[in-house]
Amino acid sequence: MRYFVTLAYDGTNFHGWQIQPNSHSVQEEMERSLGVLLQQEVKIVAAGRTDTGVHAKKMVAHFDCEKQIIDTDNFVLRWNSLLPKDIAVFSLTQVSDDLHARFSALSRKYEYHISCTKNPFLENYSARFGKLDFEKMDKVAKRLFDYTDFTSFCKIHTDALTRDCTIMQAYWEKRGDVWVFTIEANRFLRNMVRAVVGTLVAVGRGRLSEEDFCKIIEAKNRGAAGTSAPAKGLFLVDVTYPKDVFCKE
Amino acid sequence: MRYFVTLAYDGTNFHGWQIQPNSHSVQEEMERSLGVLLQQEVKIVAAGRTDTGVHAKKMVAHFDCEKQIIDTDNFVLRWNSLLPKDIAVFSLTQVSDDLHARFSALSRKYEYHISCTKNPFLENYSARFGKLDFEKMDKVAKRLFDYTDFTSFCKIHTDALTRDCTIMQAYWEKRGDVWVFTIEANRFLRNMVRAVVGTLVAVGRGRLSEEDFCKIIEAKNRGAAGTSAPAKGLFLVDVTYPKDVFCKE
Repeated sequence: MRYFVTLAYDGTNFHGWQIQPNSHSVQEEMERSLGVLLQQEVKIVAAGRTDTGVHAKKMVAHFDCEKQIIDTDNFVLRWNSLLPKDIAVFSLTQVSDDLHARFSALSRKYEYHISCTKNPFLENYSARFGKLDFEKMDKVAKRLFDYTDFTSFCKIHTDALTRDCTIMQAYWEKRGDVWVFTIEANRFLRNMVRAVVGTLVAVGRGRLSEEDFCKIIEAKNRGAAGTSAPAKGLFLVDVTYPKDVFCKE
Repeated sequence: MRYFVTLAYDGTNFHGWQIQPNSHSVQEEMERSLGVLLQQEVKIVAAGRTDTGVHAKKMVAHFDCEKQIIDTDNFVLRWNSLLPKDIAVFSLTQVSDDLHARFSALSRKYEYHISCTKNPFLENYSARFGKLDFEKMDKVAKRLFDYTDFTSFCKIHTDALTRDCTIMQAYWEKRGDVWVFTIEANRFLRNMVRAVVGTLVAVGRGRLSEEDFCKIIEAKNRGAAGTSAPAKGLFLVDVTYPKDVFCKE
Protein backbone atom coordinates (compact mmCIF):
# COMPACT_ATOMS: atom_id res chain seq x y z
CA MET A 1 0.00 0.00 0.00
CA ARG A 2 1.33 3.45 -0.86
CA TYR A 3 0.37 6.47 1.19
CA PHE A 4 0.79 10.18 0.53
CA VAL A 5 1.31 12.34 3.59
CA THR A 6 1.10 16.14 3.80
CA LEU A 7 3.07 17.86 6.52
CA ALA A 8 4.54 21.18 7.63
CA TYR A 9 7.71 21.97 9.54
CA ASP A 10 9.50 24.88 11.10
CA GLY A 11 12.97 24.44 9.59
CA THR A 12 14.78 26.63 12.15
CA ASN A 13 16.28 23.75 14.10
CA PHE A 14 16.64 21.17 11.31
CA HIS A 15 19.53 20.46 8.98
CA GLY A 16 17.00 20.28 6.17
CA TRP A 17 14.74 17.45 5.03
CA GLN A 18 17.27 14.77 4.17
CA ILE A 19 18.80 12.27 6.59
CA GLN A 20 22.52 12.89 7.03
CA PRO A 21 24.99 11.52 9.56
CA ASN A 22 25.36 13.56 12.78
CA SER A 23 22.60 15.98 11.96
CA HIS A 24 18.97 16.52 12.86
CA SER A 25 16.69 16.15 9.84
CA VAL A 26 12.96 16.19 9.22
CA GLN A 27 13.15 12.87 7.35
CA GLU A 28 14.84 11.22 10.33
CA GLU A 29 12.06 12.38 12.71
CA MET A 30 9.37 11.32 10.24
CA GLU A 31 10.84 7.84 9.68
CA ARG A 32 11.56 7.28 13.37
CA SER A 33 8.00 8.14 14.45
CA LEU A 34 6.38 6.23 11.57
CA GLY A 35 8.54 3.22 12.43
CA VAL A 36 7.13 3.28 15.97
CA LEU A 37 3.56 3.46 14.67
CA LEU A 38 3.92 0.71 12.05
CA GLN A 39 6.36 -1.42 14.03
CA GLN A 40 8.55 -1.73 10.96
CA GLU A 41 11.33 0.20 9.24
CA VAL A 42 9.97 2.63 6.65
CA LYS A 43 11.54 4.93 4.06
CA ILE A 44 9.79 8.21 3.36
CA VAL A 45 10.26 9.91 -0.03
CA ALA A 46 9.61 13.65 -0.22
CA ALA A 47 8.57 15.77 -3.21
CA GLY A 48 11.89 17.55 -2.80
CA ARG A 49 14.64 18.29 -0.34
CA THR A 50 14.73 21.50 1.63
CA ASP A 51 18.05 22.89 2.86
CA THR A 52 19.08 23.66 6.43
CA GLY A 53 16.79 26.29 7.96
CA VAL A 54 14.22 26.26 5.14
CA HIS A 55 10.59 25.88 6.26
CA ALA A 56 7.66 23.99 4.75
CA LYS A 57 4.05 25.13 5.12
CA LYS A 58 3.11 22.14 2.98
CA MET A 59 5.39 19.29 1.99
CA VAL A 60 4.18 16.08 0.35
CA ALA A 61 5.89 12.72 0.83
CA HIS A 62 5.08 9.04 0.30
CA PHE A 63 5.81 5.75 2.01
CA ASP A 64 4.87 2.12 1.46
CA CYS A 65 3.66 -0.31 4.08
CA GLU A 66 2.12 -3.75 4.14
CA LYS A 67 -0.72 -2.99 6.52
CA GLN A 68 -3.76 -1.05 5.39
CA ILE A 69 -4.34 2.01 7.56
CA ILE A 70 -8.10 2.19 7.99
CA ASP A 71 -8.64 5.11 10.37
CA THR A 72 -6.31 7.68 8.80
CA ASP A 73 -7.54 10.56 11.03
CA ASN A 74 -6.65 8.62 14.15
CA PHE A 75 -3.31 7.61 12.60
CA VAL A 76 -2.50 11.28 11.94
CA LEU A 77 -3.35 12.17 15.56
CA ARG A 78 -1.09 9.43 16.92
CA TRP A 79 1.69 10.33 14.48
CA ASN A 80 1.60 13.98 15.58
CA SER A 81 1.84 12.94 19.21
CA LEU A 82 5.13 11.14 18.40
CA LEU A 83 6.56 14.04 16.39
CA PRO A 84 8.35 17.05 17.91
CA LYS A 85 6.45 20.34 18.03
CA ASP A 86 8.22 21.71 14.94
CA ILE A 87 6.72 19.06 12.61
CA ALA A 88 3.01 18.48 12.02
CA VAL A 89 1.35 15.91 9.78
CA PHE A 90 -1.90 17.18 8.24
CA SER A 91 -3.28 14.25 6.24
CA LEU A 92 -2.70 10.70 5.08
CA THR A 93 -4.19 9.34 1.85
CA GLN A 94 -3.86 5.93 0.22
CA VAL A 95 -2.88 6.35 -3.42
CA SER A 96 -2.17 4.06 -6.37
CA ASP A 97 1.28 2.43 -6.43
CA ASP A 98 2.42 4.33 -9.51
CA LEU A 99 2.17 7.74 -7.83
CA HIS A 100 5.52 9.03 -6.57
CA ALA A 101 5.85 12.08 -4.30
CA ARG A 102 8.83 13.36 -6.27
CA PHE A 103 8.48 12.10 -9.83
CA SER A 104 4.70 12.55 -10.11
CA ALA A 105 4.78 16.16 -8.89
CA LEU A 106 3.69 18.66 -11.55
CA SER A 107 4.91 21.76 -9.74
CA ARG A 108 6.42 23.12 -6.56
CA LYS A 109 5.57 26.51 -5.10
CA TYR A 110 7.81 28.50 -2.77
CA GLU A 111 7.43 31.77 -0.88
CA TYR A 112 10.24 34.04 0.24
CA HIS A 113 9.40 36.44 3.08
CA ILE A 114 11.16 39.77 3.62
CA SER A 115 10.16 41.89 6.61
CA CYS A 116 10.59 45.63 6.41
CA THR A 117 11.01 46.25 10.14
CA LYS A 118 12.28 44.23 13.10
CA ASN A 119 9.46 42.02 14.35
CA PRO A 120 10.17 39.51 17.14
CA PHE A 121 7.57 37.09 15.75
CA LEU A 122 9.12 37.04 12.26
CA GLU A 123 12.86 36.89 13.03
CA ASN A 124 13.06 33.14 12.30
CA TYR A 125 10.61 33.33 9.40
CA SER A 126 11.82 36.21 7.22
CA ALA A 127 14.94 38.07 6.16
CA ARG A 128 15.59 41.82 6.42
CA PHE A 129 17.56 43.83 3.89
CA GLY A 130 16.87 47.51 4.57
CA LYS A 131 15.08 49.62 1.98
CA LEU A 132 14.23 47.81 -1.27
CA ASP A 133 12.25 48.81 -4.38
CA PHE A 134 9.74 45.95 -4.44
CA GLU A 135 7.79 47.34 -7.39
CA LYS A 136 10.95 47.14 -9.47
CA MET A 137 11.75 43.66 -8.11
CA ASP A 138 8.26 42.53 -9.11
CA LYS A 139 8.67 43.94 -12.63
CA VAL A 140 12.12 42.37 -13.11
CA ALA A 141 10.94 39.00 -11.70
CA LYS A 142 8.60 38.71 -14.71
CA ARG A 143 11.70 38.30 -16.90
CA LEU A 144 12.07 34.80 -15.39
CA PHE A 145 9.23 33.72 -17.71
CA ASP A 146 11.50 34.41 -20.72
CA TYR A 147 13.98 31.70 -19.78
CA THR A 148 14.10 27.98 -18.96
CA ASP A 149 17.84 27.44 -18.29
CA PHE A 150 18.67 28.72 -14.82
CA THR A 151 22.22 27.41 -14.48
CA SER A 152 23.19 30.84 -13.11
CA PHE A 153 20.93 30.25 -10.10
CA CYS A 154 22.05 26.67 -9.48
CA LYS A 155 24.54 25.45 -6.89
CA ILE A 156 27.69 24.37 -8.71
CA HIS A 157 27.75 20.81 -7.41
CA THR A 158 24.43 19.34 -8.39
CA ASP A 159 23.32 15.95 -9.66
CA ALA A 160 20.60 17.39 -11.90
CA LEU A 161 20.90 16.15 -15.46
CA THR A 162 18.95 19.02 -16.96
CA ARG A 163 18.67 22.60 -15.79
CA ASP A 164 15.45 23.43 -17.60
CA CYS A 165 12.65 24.80 -15.45
CA THR A 166 9.32 26.21 -16.56
CA ILE A 167 8.39 29.16 -14.36
CA MET A 168 4.63 29.30 -13.78
CA GLN A 169 4.33 32.13 -11.25
CA ALA A 170 6.76 34.80 -10.04
CA TYR A 171 5.52 37.89 -8.19
CA TRP A 172 6.05 40.04 -5.12
CA GLU A 173 3.11 41.12 -2.94
CA LYS A 174 2.79 42.86 0.40
CA ARG A 175 1.09 40.98 3.25
CA GLY A 176 0.90 43.20 6.32
CA ASP A 177 4.48 44.18 7.19
CA VAL A 178 6.00 41.45 5.04
CA TRP A 179 6.84 41.39 1.32
CA VAL A 180 6.32 37.92 -0.09
CA PHE A 181 7.85 36.54 -3.30
CA THR A 182 5.83 33.65 -4.72
CA ILE A 183 7.47 31.44 -7.31
CA GLU A 184 6.04 28.29 -8.86
CA ALA A 185 7.77 26.05 -11.39
CA ASN A 186 7.59 22.48 -12.59
CA ARG A 187 10.95 21.96 -10.87
CA PHE A 188 13.70 23.92 -9.16
CA LEU A 189 17.46 23.55 -9.21
CA ARG A 190 19.42 23.34 -5.97
CA ASN A 191 19.48 26.65 -4.12
CA MET A 192 17.61 28.27 -7.03
CA VAL A 193 14.92 30.25 -5.18
CA ARG A 194 17.40 31.77 -2.71
CA ALA A 195 19.75 32.71 -5.59
CA VAL A 196 16.87 34.29 -7.55
CA VAL A 197 15.79 36.25 -4.46
CA GLY A 198 19.34 37.31 -3.64
CA THR A 199 19.75 38.63 -7.18
CA LEU A 200 16.36 40.38 -7.10
CA VAL A 201 17.40 42.00 -3.81
CA ALA A 202 20.43 43.44 -5.65
CA VAL A 203 17.95 44.83 -8.19
CA GLY A 204 15.79 46.27 -5.39
CA ARG A 205 18.85 48.00 -3.93
CA GLY A 206 19.61 49.58 -7.31
CA ARG A 207 22.84 47.62 -7.74
CA LEU A 208 21.57 45.67 -10.76
CA SER A 209 19.29 46.77 -13.61
CA GLU A 210 16.65 44.72 -15.40
CA GLU A 211 19.15 44.26 -18.22
CA ASP A 212 21.82 43.05 -15.76
CA PHE A 213 19.33 40.53 -14.39
CA CYS A 214 18.72 39.08 -17.87
CA LYS A 215 22.43 39.02 -18.64
CA ILE A 216 23.04 37.05 -15.44
CA ILE A 217 20.56 34.38 -16.54
CA GLU A 218 22.02 34.33 -20.05
CA ALA A 219 25.56 33.87 -18.66
CA LYS A 220 24.55 30.38 -17.43
CA ASN A 221 27.19 30.73 -14.76
CA ARG A 222 26.52 30.70 -11.01
CA GLY A 223 29.31 33.18 -10.42
CA ALA A 224 27.31 35.82 -12.31
CA ALA A 225 24.37 35.94 -9.88
CA GLY A 226 24.08 37.65 -6.52
CA THR A 227 24.53 35.94 -3.17
CA SER A 228 21.82 33.61 -1.91
CA ALA A 229 19.17 35.06 0.38
CA PRO A 230 19.13 33.52 3.91
CA ALA A 231 17.36 30.17 4.35
CA LYS A 232 15.08 31.40 7.19
CA GLY A 233 12.92 33.46 4.77
CA LEU A 234 12.15 30.51 2.49
CA PHE A 235 9.01 28.34 2.68
CA LEU A 236 7.92 25.45 0.50
CA VAL A 237 4.17 26.13 0.34
CA ASP A 238 2.68 23.68 -2.13
CA VAL A 239 3.30 20.70 -4.40
CA THR A 240 0.78 19.79 -7.09
CA TYR A 241 0.04 16.45 -8.77
CA PRO A 242 -1.70 15.42 -12.04
CA LYS A 243 -4.91 14.40 -10.33
CA ASP A 244 -6.25 15.22 -6.93
CA VAL A 245 -4.56 12.44 -4.98
CA PHE A 246 -5.80 13.96 -1.72
CA CYS A 247 -9.44 13.56 -2.62
CA LYS A 248 -10.81 10.53 -0.79
CA GLU A 249 -14.11 10.41 -2.70
CA MET B 1 12.37 64.76 29.02
CA ARG B 2 9.85 61.91 29.05
CA TYR B 3 9.63 59.47 26.17
CA PHE B 4 7.00 56.90 25.29
CA VAL B 5 8.27 53.82 23.53
CA THR B 6 6.21 51.17 21.74
CA LEU B 7 7.66 47.69 21.46
CA ALA B 8 6.83 44.04 20.82
CA TYR B 9 8.33 40.87 22.23
CA ASP B 10 8.13 37.14 21.82
CA GLY B 11 7.63 36.09 25.44
CA THR B 12 8.65 32.44 24.93
CA ASN B 13 12.09 32.79 26.49
CA PHE B 14 11.40 35.57 29.01
CA HIS B 15 10.32 35.38 32.63
CA GLY B 16 7.82 38.12 31.86
CA TRP B 17 8.24 41.88 31.67
CA GLN B 18 9.44 42.67 35.19
CA ILE B 19 13.03 42.56 36.41
CA GLN B 20 13.52 39.80 38.97
CA PRO B 21 16.68 38.28 40.44
CA ASN B 22 18.14 35.31 38.52
CA SER B 23 15.71 35.54 35.66
CA HIS B 24 15.65 36.87 32.11
CA SER B 25 13.14 39.69 31.75
CA VAL B 26 12.12 42.06 28.96
CA GLN B 27 12.56 45.06 31.28
CA GLU B 28 16.15 44.03 32.03
CA GLU B 29 17.01 43.82 28.31
CA MET B 30 15.29 47.14 27.61
CA GLU B 31 17.05 48.98 30.47
CA ARG B 32 20.44 47.44 29.70
CA SER B 33 20.34 48.43 26.02
CA LEU B 34 18.91 51.89 26.72
CA GLY B 35 21.65 52.44 29.32
CA VAL B 36 24.26 51.74 26.64
CA LEU B 37 22.64 54.20 24.24
CA LEU B 38 22.14 57.01 26.76
CA GLN B 39 25.31 56.29 28.75
CA GLN B 40 23.31 56.54 31.97
CA GLU B 41 21.19 54.27 34.14
CA VAL B 42 17.52 54.42 33.17
CA LYS B 43 14.32 52.95 34.60
CA ILE B 44 11.61 51.94 32.16
CA VAL B 45 7.97 51.86 33.29
CA ALA B 46 5.56 49.69 31.30
CA ALA B 47 1.79 50.02 30.88
CA GLY B 48 1.53 46.71 32.69
CA ARG B 49 3.44 43.57 33.52
CA THR B 50 3.15 40.44 31.48
CA ASP B 51 3.78 37.04 33.05
CA THR B 52 6.35 34.42 32.04
CA GLY B 53 5.76 33.26 28.48
CA VAL B 54 3.16 35.92 27.62
CA HIS B 55 3.81 37.82 24.36
CA ALA B 56 3.30 41.46 23.41
CA LYS B 57 2.44 42.57 19.89
CA LYS B 58 2.34 46.11 21.25
CA MET B 59 3.49 47.22 24.68
CA VAL B 60 3.88 50.86 25.70
CA ALA B 61 6.45 52.05 28.24
CA HIS B 62 8.04 55.31 29.31
CA PHE B 63 11.43 56.52 30.51
CA ASP B 64 12.97 59.85 31.47
CA CYS B 65 16.32 61.17 30.35
CA GLU B 66 18.16 64.46 30.48
CA LYS B 67 19.26 64.60 26.86
CA GLN B 68 16.82 65.41 24.11
CA ILE B 69 16.70 62.69 21.47
CA ILE B 70 16.45 64.56 18.15
CA ASP B 71 16.60 61.82 15.54
CA THR B 72 14.17 59.33 17.05
CA ASP B 73 14.13 57.08 13.94
CA ASN B 74 17.87 56.63 14.12
CA PHE B 75 17.66 56.08 17.89
CA VAL B 76 15.11 53.29 17.34
CA LEU B 77 17.39 51.67 14.75
CA ARG B 78 20.36 51.74 17.10
CA TRP B 79 18.24 50.51 20.02
CA ASN B 80 17.02 47.52 17.99
CA SER B 81 20.57 46.62 17.05
CA LEU B 82 21.40 46.34 20.79
CA LEU B 83 18.28 44.31 21.63
CA PRO B 84 18.00 40.51 21.20
CA LYS B 85 15.94 39.24 18.27
CA ASP B 86 12.90 38.53 20.44
CA ILE B 87 12.36 42.22 21.33
CA ALA B 88 11.72 45.02 18.82
CA VAL B 89 11.19 48.73 19.49
CA PHE B 90 8.78 50.32 16.99
CA SER B 91 8.70 54.00 17.91
CA LEU B 92 9.89 56.67 20.31
CA THR B 93 7.88 59.80 21.05
CA GLN B 94 8.60 62.68 23.39
CA VAL B 95 5.55 63.33 25.58
CA SER B 96 4.60 65.75 28.34
CA ASP B 97 5.95 64.94 31.79
CA ASP B 98 2.52 64.24 33.26
CA LEU B 99 1.88 61.29 30.95
CA HIS B 100 2.59 57.93 32.60
CA ALA B 101 2.70 54.65 30.64
CA ARG B 102 0.77 52.84 33.37
CA PHE B 103 -1.41 55.41 35.11
CA SER B 104 -2.41 57.38 32.00
CA ALA B 105 -3.50 54.29 30.09
CA LEU B 106 -7.22 54.22 29.33
CA SER B 107 -7.43 50.61 28.28
CA ARG B 108 -5.47 47.46 27.57
CA LYS B 109 -6.37 44.96 24.89
CA TYR B 110 -5.35 41.29 24.90
CA GLU B 111 -5.78 38.44 22.45
CA TYR B 112 -5.82 34.75 23.32
CA HIS B 113 -5.04 32.36 20.45
CA ILE B 114 -6.30 28.77 20.26
CA SER B 115 -5.24 26.61 17.31
CA CYS B 116 -7.50 23.81 16.20
CA THR B 117 -4.81 21.59 14.68
CA LYS B 118 -1.09 21.06 15.26
CA ASN B 119 0.84 23.74 13.38
CA PRO B 120 4.63 23.95 13.78
CA PHE B 121 4.56 27.74 13.30
CA LEU B 122 1.98 28.30 16.04
CA GLU B 123 3.19 25.94 18.77
CA ASN B 124 4.78 28.76 20.79
CA TYR B 125 2.00 31.24 19.99
CA SER B 126 -1.23 29.41 20.71
CA ALA B 127 -2.77 26.74 22.91
CA ARG B 128 -4.63 23.62 21.79
CA PHE B 129 -7.58 22.10 23.64
CA GLY B 130 -9.25 19.63 21.29
CA LYS B 131 -12.81 20.24 20.11
CA LEU B 132 -14.49 23.35 21.53
CA ASP B 133 -17.83 25.06 20.87
CA PHE B 134 -16.54 28.55 20.03
CA GLU B 135 -19.99 29.92 19.15
CA LYS B 136 -21.13 29.10 22.67
CA MET B 137 -17.91 30.53 24.15
CA ASP B 138 -18.53 33.76 22.23
CA LYS B 139 -22.12 33.97 23.50
CA VAL B 140 -21.13 33.30 27.12
CA ALA B 141 -18.20 35.77 26.92
CA LYS B 142 -20.77 38.56 26.45
CA ARG B 143 -21.89 38.00 30.06
CA LEU B 144 -18.59 39.61 31.15
CA PHE B 145 -20.21 42.97 30.28
CA ASP B 146 -22.73 42.42 33.11
CA TYR B 147 -20.07 42.52 35.82
CA THR B 148 -17.24 44.72 37.10
CA ASP B 149 -15.91 42.67 40.05
CA PHE B 150 -13.74 39.86 38.71
CA THR B 151 -12.24 38.60 41.98
CA SER B 152 -13.00 35.07 40.77
CA PHE B 153 -10.55 35.54 37.90
CA CYS B 154 -7.80 37.16 40.00
CA LYS B 155 -4.68 35.52 41.40
CA ILE B 156 -5.13 35.23 45.16
CA HIS B 157 -2.00 37.18 46.11
CA THR B 158 -2.40 40.53 44.45
CA ASP B 159 -1.60 44.06 45.48
CA ALA B 160 -4.59 45.54 43.64
CA LEU B 161 -6.71 47.72 45.92
CA THR B 162 -9.82 47.41 43.83
CA ARG B 163 -10.97 44.58 41.61
CA ASP B 164 -13.34 46.60 39.46
CA CYS B 165 -12.77 46.37 35.74
CA THR B 166 -14.92 47.73 32.93
CA ILE B 167 -14.98 45.29 30.04
CA MET B 168 -15.11 47.13 26.70
CA GLN B 169 -14.75 44.25 24.23
CA ALA B 170 -14.99 40.47 24.57
CA TYR B 171 -15.45 38.23 21.53
CA TRP B 172 -14.16 35.13 19.75
CA GLU B 173 -13.42 35.15 16.02
CA LYS B 174 -11.78 32.73 13.61
CA ARG B 175 -8.63 33.86 11.80
CA GLY B 176 -7.44 31.16 9.42
CA ASP B 177 -6.87 28.04 11.55
CA VAL B 178 -6.82 29.99 14.81
CA TRP B 179 -9.65 31.06 17.11
CA VAL B 180 -8.85 34.41 18.71
CA PHE B 181 -10.42 35.82 21.88
CA THR B 182 -10.16 39.61 22.03
CA ILE B 183 -10.76 41.31 25.37
CA GLU B 184 -10.36 44.99 26.14
CA ALA B 185 -10.86 46.61 29.54
CA ASN B 186 -9.79 49.73 31.37
CA ARG B 187 -7.67 47.46 33.55
CA PHE B 188 -7.07 43.78 34.24
CA LEU B 189 -6.39 41.89 37.46
CA ARG B 190 -3.39 39.56 37.73
CA ASN B 191 -3.83 36.44 35.64
CA MET B 192 -7.37 37.57 34.70
CA VAL B 193 -7.36 36.95 30.93
CA ARG B 194 -5.93 33.46 31.26
CA ALA B 195 -8.46 32.61 34.00
CA VAL B 196 -11.35 33.97 31.88
CA VAL B 197 -10.14 31.93 28.87
CA GLY B 198 -9.62 28.80 30.98
CA THR B 199 -13.19 29.11 32.28
CA LEU B 200 -14.59 29.78 28.79
CA VAL B 201 -12.75 26.66 27.56
CA ALA B 202 -14.65 24.67 30.22
CA VAL B 203 -17.84 26.18 28.73
CA GLY B 204 -16.69 25.25 25.20
CA ARG B 205 -16.13 21.66 26.34
CA GLY B 206 -19.67 21.51 27.75
CA ARG B 207 -18.45 21.19 31.34
CA LEU B 208 -19.90 24.56 32.40
CA SER B 209 -23.14 26.26 31.34
CA GLU B 210 -23.75 29.97 30.81
CA GLU B 211 -25.41 30.04 34.21
CA ASP B 212 -22.39 28.33 35.80
CA PHE B 213 -20.14 30.98 34.23
CA CYS B 214 -22.18 33.79 35.82
CA LYS B 215 -22.28 32.01 39.17
CA ILE B 216 -18.50 31.71 39.10
CA ILE B 217 -18.15 35.49 38.66
CA GLU B 218 -20.76 36.14 41.36
CA ALA B 219 -18.91 33.85 43.79
CA LYS B 220 -16.04 36.38 43.90
CA ASN B 221 -13.72 33.51 44.74
CA ARG B 222 -10.78 32.36 42.60
CA GLY B 223 -11.41 28.77 43.61
CA ALA B 224 -14.71 28.85 41.74
CA ALA B 225 -13.21 29.45 38.27
CA GLY B 226 -11.53 27.01 35.89
CA THR B 227 -7.79 26.58 35.52
CA SER B 228 -5.78 29.27 33.74
CA ALA B 229 -5.13 28.83 30.03
CA PRO B 230 -1.40 28.47 29.12
CA ALA B 231 0.67 31.67 28.86
CA LYS B 232 1.94 30.96 25.32
CA GLY B 233 -1.48 31.73 23.77
CA LEU B 234 -1.71 35.21 25.34
CA PHE B 235 -0.72 38.47 23.61
CA LEU B 236 -0.93 42.04 24.83
CA VAL B 237 -1.95 43.77 21.59
CA ASP B 238 -2.71 47.40 22.46
CA VAL B 239 -2.72 50.09 25.16
CA THR B 240 -4.70 53.28 24.62
CA TYR B 241 -4.20 56.77 26.09
CA PRO B 242 -6.46 59.84 26.52
CA LYS B 243 -4.95 61.70 23.60
CA ASP B 244 -2.87 60.48 20.75
CA VAL B 245 0.54 60.67 22.39
CA PHE B 246 2.10 58.96 19.40
CA CYS B 247 1.12 61.69 16.98
CA LYS B 248 4.16 63.84 16.29
CA GLU B 249 2.22 66.52 14.41
